[in-house]
Amino acid sequence: MNKVIFIIGVSGSGKSTIGKLLAEDLHIPFFDGDDFHPESNVLKMSKGYALNDDDRFGWLQTLNNLAKKELKSNSCIIVCSALKKNYRHILNEGIKNSTKWVFLQGSFDQITDRINKRDDHFMSSELLQSQFDTLEKPTEAITIDINLSPKKIVENVINQLQDKSEFGLFGLGVMGKSLCRNLANNGFKISMFNRHVAGVEEDVAKNFKSEFSELSNASAFDDISVFVNSLQTPRKIMLMVNAGKTIDYVIENLLPHLSENDILIDGGNSNYKKTKKRNEYLKTKGIHFIGTGVSGGEEGALKGPSIMPSGNKEAYKQVQPYLEKISAKDKNGLPCCIYVGPEGSGQFIKMVHNGVEYVEMQLLAEVSTILKAMGQNLDAISSTLESWKDTASSYLLEITTAIFKKKEGDDWLVNKILDKAGNKGTGNWTTIASAELGVPSTLIASALFSRYVTFYKDERVLLSKNFEKQTVSELNITTNEVLEAYQFARIINHYQGFKLIIEASNKSSWNLNISEIARIWTNGCIIRSTLMEDLVDAFKETTNFLTNVEIIEKLNQYKPSTKKVISQCVLNDLTTPALSEAIQFLNGITTAYASANVIQAQRDYFGAHTYQRLDDPSGKSHHTNWN
Amino acid sequence: MNKVIFIIGVSGSGKSTIGKLLAEDLHIPFFDGDDFHPESNVLKMSKGYALNDDDRFGWLQTLNNLAKKELKSNSCIIVCSALKKNYRHILNEGIKNSTKWVFLQGSFDQITDRINKRDDHFMSSELLQSQFDTLEKPTEAITIDINLSPKKIVENVINQLQDKSEFGLFGLGVMGKSLCRNLANNGFKISMFNRHVAGVEEDVAKNFKSEFSELSNASAFDDISVFVNSLQTPRKIMLMVNAGKTIDYVIENLLPHLSENDILIDGGNSNYKKTKKRNEYLKTKGIHFIGTGVSGGEEGALKGPSIMPSGNKEAYKQVQPYLEKISAKDKNGLPCCIYVGPEGSGQFIKMVHNGVEYVEMQLLAEVSTILKAMGQNLDAISSTLESWKDTASSYLLEITTAIFKKKEGDDWLVNKILDKAGNKGTGNWTTIASAELGVPSTLIASALFSRYVTFYKDERVLLSKNFEKQTVSELNITTNEVLEAYQFARIINHYQGFKLIIEASNKSSWNLNISEIARIWTNGCIIRSTLMEDLVDAFKETTNFLTNVEIIEKLNQYKPSTKKVISQCVLNDLTTPALSEAIQFLNGITTAYASANVIQAQRDYFGAHTYQRLDDPSGKSHHTNWN
Repeated sequence: MNKVIFIIGVSGSGKSTIGKLLAEDLHIPFFDGDDFHPESNVLKMSKGYALNDDDRFGWLQTLNNLAKKELKSNSCIIVCSALKKNYRHILNEGIKNSTKWVFLQGSFDQITDRINKRDDHFMSSELLQSQFDTLEKPTEAITIDINLSPKKIVENVINQLQDKSEFGLFGLGVMGKSLCRNLANNGFKISMFNRHVAGVEEDVAKNFKSEFSELSNASAFDDISVFVNSLQTPRKIMLMVNAGKTIDYVIENLLPHLSENDILIDGGNSNYKKTKKRNEYLKTKGIHFIGTGVSGGEEGALKGPSIMPSGNKEAYKQVQPYLEKISAKDKNGLPCCIYVGPEGSGQFIKMVHNGVEYVEMQLLAEVSTILKAMGQNLDAISSTLESWKDTASSYLLEITTAIFKKKEGDDWLVNKILDKAGNKGTGNWTTIASAELGVPSTLIASALFSRYVTFYKDERVLLSKNFEKQTVSELNITTNEVLEAYQFARIINHYQGFKLIIEASNKSSWNLNISEIARIWTNGCIIRSTLMEDLVDAFKETTNFLTNVEIIEKLNQYKPSTKKVISQCVLNDLTTPALSEAIQFLNGITTAYASANVIQAQRDYFGAHTYQRLDDPSGKSHHTNWN
Repeated sequence: MNKVIFIIGVSGSGKSTIGKLLAEDLHIPFFDGDDFHPESNVLKMSKGYALNDDDRFGWLQTLNNLAKKELKSNSCIIVCSALKKNYRHILNEGIKNSTKWVFLQGSFDQITDRINKRDDHFMSSELLQSQFDTLEKPTEAITIDINLSPKKIVENVINQLQDKSEFGLFGLGVMGKSLCRNLANNGFKISMFNRHVAGVEEDVAKNFKSEFSELSNASAFDDISVFVNSLQTPRKIMLMVNAGKTIDYVIENLLPHLSENDILIDGGNSNYKKTKKRNEYLKTKGIHFIGTGVSGGEEGALKGPSIMPSGNKEAYKQVQPYLEKISAKDKNGLPCCIYVGPEGSGQFIKMVHNGVEYVEMQLLAEVSTILKAMGQNLDAISSTLESWKDTASSYLLEITTAIFKKKEGDDWLVNKILDKAGNKGTGNWTTIASAELGVPSTLIASALFSRYVTFYKDERVLLSKNFEKQTVSELNITTNEVLEAYQFARIINHYQGFKLIIEASNKSSWNLNISEIARIWTNGCIIRSTLMEDLVDAFKETTNFLTNVEIIEKLNQYKPSTKKVISQCVLNDLTTPALSEAIQFLNGITTAYASANVIQAQRDYFGAHTYQRLDDPSGKSHHTNWN
């Protein structure tokens, strides 16, 4: 359908330049409204007088006629200041459904500055002021900031003329769907894609769109090419597909349809090393890649997740408005989304986030084991956890409280769940990263391996018959002591997690802002908690929060209870590896002279690996013939 | 220098065939002694009469003259049965330093069989018997089994004529040197190589050779090309260089000098994944690669290490005699060296060996911490460990006993060692393999991370001031309880290590023989112990030794002491992570219904990850809206 595109704005806003470029790009005729003034108007303006409305009406009707005539055979561009609503009314008469308005917007100073640089234009500064006084900003127009380059302006105009989407989302799983609704709820025009797999995934995007009213303006696709073409350039496509080979497959499928400077955002739990490689690969194709951690689960994705983007900073700026808008907000209303750092760093901190999450979950499982052994039924455990909210508030505490309350018939639902803990790789990768980077993230390893132990269900059942457990008669501990042990272990967990991030940042020169990372984890994500809020401030002073006075006080306060709880658990055959490891770690990291001298002696004895001496600060290697 | 090569042996042993081929290969004249018999001798033989010594003397002198004449201008080959010592004496006369003897050896039946297949030879079976009766086997000759193919015989003869080495050793570090001496002590003729680095590594091989009398027959090189050429083909070269990039660098340096079917043996602690890749790469070059774990430290390498070769089995057979000969022997005199399995498996089990070793060392360090806290000085600790020999004998216990005794002046030497434990990657890799394979090797991770904690020496000293330790007044435990806890943890350690091997074997279809692996670890290697000897038998019945009655009994016997020791350590701020984790693990793996149901509920709550139900054996995924 043919359209008349009116480029409007005050004199000096660049209407002619933009209009001509646009006409060229769209291959349609260009008309400068000024060329259609009657001679009397031109004369008046050249003398420095402003035109009045009577002067204008005939001229505007001329342009309206021009538009009508052109529309019969083609689209066209007409440039005209059209500052007042009623001028536009005249231009629009009888062709309302066939007009588009592009308003070039700039400040008085900007435009004065521009005009002063021209020498071929009949315009005084006084006259410009009168134009600004006259201007009634259009509300329906495509409004463009004149500060952008002409090329960029034309690109933006074309995108908006074609009603293309601002943002694409690829992959409508649990997280992808929630993010779509979040984007739509925030007023973004989005395109949504899900593959077509006959009999398995059919019309996923279309059906999803019809399910939620907020998606009425969204576009749904199962054809990659059409999906990509529905997006404004440079395209911004967020991939929410399974980590691993799938993401590489998806990238290969997308590549033929993308253009230079398009931006792919990987919002999945990809391995950070792979993210680095993909970044390098896509760079060779002229495509930007923003590896982005997203945490919050289904609900967080919908209402506001914590978002951890990384990669090329300039490319990030183009997706920043979207990601910040849909992210959770911290207690001061700031988005729980920051540019984390260079490629891979976003996925790295998300990985560690998940490692810390594994431990927080494991600790709650261990706590429930203890409370059960203390004689509490699940309702009582739920109440106990509920009562801990003032001291130990966290999202995971909250949902675990709810879980223990949930009944199915007469029994608690959780009692019917098979006791094999799943994992999707991030705990695994965090443990590997710890091993590789030389950082003792013992609690994460402990939580991971605890899940692994649970995999061996058949073996556990078999071996339980060979090894009888102590029957717990009475655990000599209070619920408050359990709470303190829990809090103790949580602090150690966070210490180890952040230590891993800090060491990775140092080794990779990522220069991460640790306090800001803690801040974006205070809301939206799975490990949000009051402890995390405390850490935001602690990290402003030091990267080693075991030197923070409040933390030291807390740990020293909690330690006696922790020791009591753990020793009682050991004596009563209760399995609490993460709690137990927490105290081992604090003891280890606060031991000035450790027993590693024995290990060094052994290594030197059998392998001549040499050792350093306390009394030789040069660090020289010494070897002894021990025999 | 010119040589006369006499090819000798009974009629029908293939002297002429071999002699001609050899002459061709060496580009020297060939003479068949039979062609120089006087007519009277030929006639006698054709009638079936054996020649007597009188018949022979003139003929042998003729051949001696022929040899002398040829030697003036060139080397040559003369074929002649020369069965008696005094015949050879005549042939040798006046040219003793210029003769070489090649004796083709075969049994009566073999040779009868051969002769029956020929129809152009003047020889009866009776006459053959007389030859065997006459034969006085030469002692100085190069003796070759006629069963080999002519090509192989010629190759062997040339190798031995040129006095080439049987086996090459590349890299004369601590382990490389010890292996060289071991090979030489076992009578092998070896070539030894060490690179030349001006001012740092100069004449390493040459100096090493001159240092030890057993190396007088070995050849020393610092030129790769000359080193490789000094070896009999197919060459057998054992690489004892640093794992990692060095080994790839060395391989690239060697490749241009190698020939098809040469064999490289990597005896370093290479990562098993890299070994697989190198194997594939070298296959494309026609070179065999035998990834081989070697354990025993400096002393083991010298006196007999435990050796774990893997890769192409046919290629292995060619190096088997060398590796078996230099390896340690088990209590039944069998070599502590078996063909482990396909490529990578040897290095994998060596890696796990080292992981288990990390734990054994860590446990001894922890034990020393406890004994010290019980008030024992290092002499007393040494005595205590000494007294454990009957129950817990192991190489590491033995050397640790010695270490605690070692004095420097008035103080114990070990007290002067900096308490930062080093590591060379294998503990790290084992932890990574555990994470990747889904096997909970918690003690290895614990030992690794304990070393990592010790790295942070400055931080430990700093933090020790913020967190005061309990002053141990009196630990309420006995040394026997500590011993039982130590034994308990060792059993768990071995269980986890072997479990990792078993799972890797299953996943990679390596089909490893677990009992045999335990057997080759009963001597020569660092983790040899009486416990390992017990496991050889246990693994003959089952791969899961927690179902073995004796082991169950022991663990149940040790457990009360273990619980007491650990709880006392926790209450007294002693750092014993590996001991502590041992009990956690046994509790975990023997818990029929674990708290993982809570974790599955949490995962389903926030991430819709679903769960399985106890009452639904179909394994179907269930999801609940928990809110």
